[in-house]
Formats: sequence, structure tokens, C-alpha cells
Amino acid sequence: MFSERLHERAAAVGSRVCLGIDPRAELHDASPLTGVERPATSREDDAAATARAVTSYFRGLLDATADLIACCKPQSAFFEALGLPGLEALASLTAHARTLGVPVILDAKRGDIDSTAAAYASAYLTGGRLAGDALTINPYLGMDSLEPFITTADDTGRGVFVLLKTSNSGSIDLQDAPLASGVPLYRHLANMLAARAGTMPRDEHGFTALGVVVGATHASHLAELRSVLPRSVFLVPGYGAQGGTADDVAAAFDGNGRGAVVSASRSLTYASGPVGDYPTGAIDAARGAVVLMRDAINGAVARR
Amino acid sequence: MFSERLHERAAAVGSRVCLGIDPRAELHDASPLTGVERPATSREDDAAATARAVTSYFRGLLDATADLIACCKPQSAFFEALGLPGLEALASLTAHARTLGVPVILDAKRGDIDSTAAAYASAYLTGGRLAGDALTINPYLGMDSLEPFITTADDTGRGVFVLLKTSNSGSIDLQDAPLASGVPLYRHLANMLAARAGTMPRDEHGFTALGVVVGATHASHLAELRSVLPRSVFLVPGYGAQGGTADDVAAAFDGNGRGAVVSASRSLTYASGPVGDYPTGAIDAARGAVVLMRDAINGAVARR
Repeated sequence: MFSERLHERAAAVGSRVCLGIDPRAELHDASPLTGVERPATSREDDAAATARAVTSYFRGLLDATADLIACCKPQSAFFEALGLPGLEALASLTAHARTLGVPVILDAKRGDIDSTAAAYASAYLTGGRLAGDALTINPYLGMDSLEPFITTADDTGRGVFVLLKTSNSGSIDLQDAPLASGVPLYRHLANMLAARAGTMPRDEHGFTALGVVVGATHASHLAELRSVLPRSVFLVPGYGAQGGTADDVAAAFDGNGRGAVVSASRSLTYASGPVGDYPTGAIDAARGAVVLMRDAINGAVARR
Repeated sequence: MFSERLHERAAAVGSRVCLGIDPRAELHDASPLTGVERPATSREDDAAATARAVTSYFRGLLDATADLIACCKPQSAFFEALGLPGLEALASLTAHARTLGVPVILDAKRGDIDSTAAAYASAYLTGGRLAGDALTINPYLGMDSLEPFITTADDTGRGVFVLLKTSNSGSIDLQDAPLASGVPLYRHLANMLAARAGTMPRDEHGFTALGVVVGATHASHLAELRSVLPRSVFLVPGYGAQGGTADDVAAAFDGNGRGAVVSASRSLTYASGPVGDYPTGAIDAARGAVVLMRDAINGAVARR
């Protein structure tokens, strides 16, 4: 199952880092896609050129960092922004990560009801070209909307990560809303997820296919939620650029240093700025940034 | 702006119906994609064949119903489940609806933070081939996560529909959670959205680019939310197959019969069952079902 493969990989490479793959058009070419309306034809041509540049750069980057990372996390939005050529790039990079043995968490934050959720699960948690090893999903529609994802993940040996407490400041609006029962909404959700995970098949370390997303910017929440959700792997975004430190994220791991991966994107993959015509330099810089992040997190976990 | 175009169209055709386009592989061919793992190659071939059948059927269906519908709503999940050929089908059907003058609400329920949300907005609310005239979005990450969608929609004359209270029974889990302040979560969100809409440009009838999704299965909520959100167009799913009636949804409209569209999918587009080799019969049945729904809603709104 996914949690097992993730832990085996993390142990084999000695890393808890999840490499976020957020391809930003403006860092790869001179004619960035922006929010402005443009003629569809030139926009498509630009997108295809950017998608080729992105595929080439991130293939090289995966080759260069595969020995330093537990997994990778392509952000679907940036591929979708490039249209159909972008989705072809996503399929290609997912396949490449597979050949390197690097698990892929597709960050697409999907969510819908009934057979619609099942269609998303079919797209991203079965054998299609856009499918990763795990998928991020959004819980706003309720537990019944998560069920098709959870059961498909269990059936196919893949995983899901439910958005629980995100790293942005606006996460207070709904996620922290104080309930009449005395807990914030995210804790109410955590309780429901813990109950569901309690019924699921476990790997040898006690983890299930039902993971959660908890931002690195909420150190106290990480400790609280780690104890509420002992059967869930944590995906922890917000490290680095968004302000989370190694000591902040250490609380996401269990007593054996397992049960979480920490992701960063821009601060790693564009560590030296725009890629431009010199990808070798960008890849060297990225490798250096991944090593620093890997060592900082391993150190913080060891010190606890 | 989008709300204006939608109202003009609804008035011109005398219909408040939104035709949901949920292409279900198993109703178009004999080798349905299911949750089961299959070899990637044969799966891709099947998906391409299904995508061609889907494109052909729904082009014909749009041609046959354009004079009966206010807008259409492709469900992205079912296209994504067909992989890249499915997304090509989505782009093709979106372009076709445009040539017929039928506004397209892309039901993709996207949501993310910062520049990631901006990437989704660029993909679906600017000039790309996958872009519709409006997009459904998910609010779980908070108001700051909605902002890139809202501002892009305002800039490009398009619209957004924020999930507020959905039609599924599991919507009680988070959306109905009672807050310490005495209101359920969805009402807290409605208040925040009303405040935001209050600052936005309005069309001649007072509506903005910030719409909401409220399920037809919650008649009392529709009346409550209509008064809380006078500047928002309502997208009302859950009519028919999910149990909402014409009298239930009448409360979604303002005193002039404006401000909402009601969507149904399966019960219209597959009214006669599987399409198979006889699409003409399926299209005739769909046309009949759309007429019944149109007249039932118009009647219920007139009776109020």
C-alpha cells in the first residue's frame, strides 16, 4: 500500500522531503501566461512551448534529486494553466517519477459527490496516465463525498490526503471557525477522519490510505493532530517560503520519526530564480536547497 | 458581464434550466472504465473512443436543446476520467456551446491558495480552450483562496459560483456544523460572501460575478440565502434525480424571477437510458425532459 511504499522510500534515501513541482510559466520563458485575455492560437502555442520547457527541466530535476527525496508533489493547477499541453507534461513527468521509483502525490484538491467523486477517483487513483500514487482531496462537501476516493485508494493500493488545516492565513475563516461543541471545525473534521481511518486496513507501522494535509505554519496544530490521527500520514506544505521551520514540522512525525512528509516547491525548484537558458545551474541550486531542507528536518526530528 | 449575459439568455429563451453535461462512459460504450486497474494502453484507446462518442452525442444534444436552456454545465470530473482525450472533448464542447450562444458553467470545484488559485483562474476564467464563462469553486481554504478567482472573473467578465450548501446528505458534516456564534457554518460563509459581493461591480439587475451553489434539496435554505445574498446568482443542482422539485427551487429566484439557474444532468441527458447506437432517440427523450423541467420551474416561479 501507498503508506508502506512511502515509508520504505523515506528510509531508503534518508529523507522526509516531498519535492513540490509547481511549474511557473514566467520562470521558464519570456512570454508568460497571465490573467489577461489573449488570442487562443498564440496562447496555445506559448503554452505548448512552455510545457516542453517545463517537462525538460523537471525531468532533469527529478533525475538529479531522486536520491534526496521521499516523494514528489506535482501541483495540478500549474499544469492545467498550460491547457492540454500542460496535462501531457503532467502525464510525462508522472511516468518519469515512476521509472525513478519516486512516489507521486498529485496535488489537485478534488472533491465532489457520489458518482462525480468516483469519476475523479477513477481519473487519479486508478491506472490512467494522469494518476499519481496519491491525491489531495477537499472535504467541504462532507464525509460521503470523500468515500469514493477512500475506497478506491484502498482498492488500488494508493492514498488520499484530505485537506484539514491549510497553511494560508485565510484558513481561519472556515477551518478555525469555533463550533458550538467547543472545538474548531478542523478538529471536528479530524475526529470524523480518525473514526474512518480506524476502520481501514493498516500497514506494518499502523498507517492507512487516509492521510491529511496540515500546514507547516501551524506547529501547535501539528502536535494536536498527530495524536488525534495516529493512522494517518501527514502531508505538510508551507515549509520555507511560507514560513514553516524544521522545528515546526518535527511535531508531524510519530515517535519513530515516521508518518509525515514535508513539501516545499518554489524555494527548492527555483532556488536560483528563473530557469531561463541555464537549467544546469538551476538544478544544482535546487539540489543544494533540497539537501539543506532534508538535513534540517532530519536534525529537528532527531532532536525531539 | 456574465450575470447579465445569463439573464439576457434566460429571458430570450424563456428558460431557467442549466443543462448538466455529465458524460458517463458506461452509457456510451460497451467497455466502461471502472475503478479497476487496467493496462494503460487499452485504457487510453477505450477513453479516446468514448471521448469521440461523448463529443458527438453532446454536440447533437446542445444543437437540439439550445433554444430550451439558459446555460449548460459540463462536469469536469467525467471529462477528466477520460484522460487527455476527455479534456479535448471538453474543449470541443465548450467551443461548440459558445457558437450556439449558450453560456458554459464549468463545474470543476477548484480551490487552492495564492498563486496556485491564480493558476486555476488563469486556466478556467481567461482565454484558454478549457475555460468556460463561469467556474464553480470550493471555499474550504478560506476567503483569501477565493480572491484570485473573484478578481479574475471581474477582470474578464466571467463568473464564479462558490459551493455554499450542497445537495448531498453528507453536506451536514461541515456545512451545517453549528457554530458557537449560533449559526451553521454555511450561513457564516454566506455572510462573508455577501460582504464581498457588496463591494463588487453590479449589472443592471444588481447581480455580481460572485455566485453561489445551493442544492435544490434544501428549500428552506434557498429562501434564507436568497435574502442574505441579493447580489449573487444561484446555481441550484439536485433537481430531479436528487429529489429537488420545482416548488423547492422557486425560492432561489428573486421577486422578478431572476437570479438563479437550476441544473439537472442524468435525468435530462440520459432520460431514455443508455445512448448506445441510437442517439436520435436519446436526444428526443432529452428534449422532452428539458421541456418538462423548463415548464415546471417557470410555472412554480409564476405561482409564487
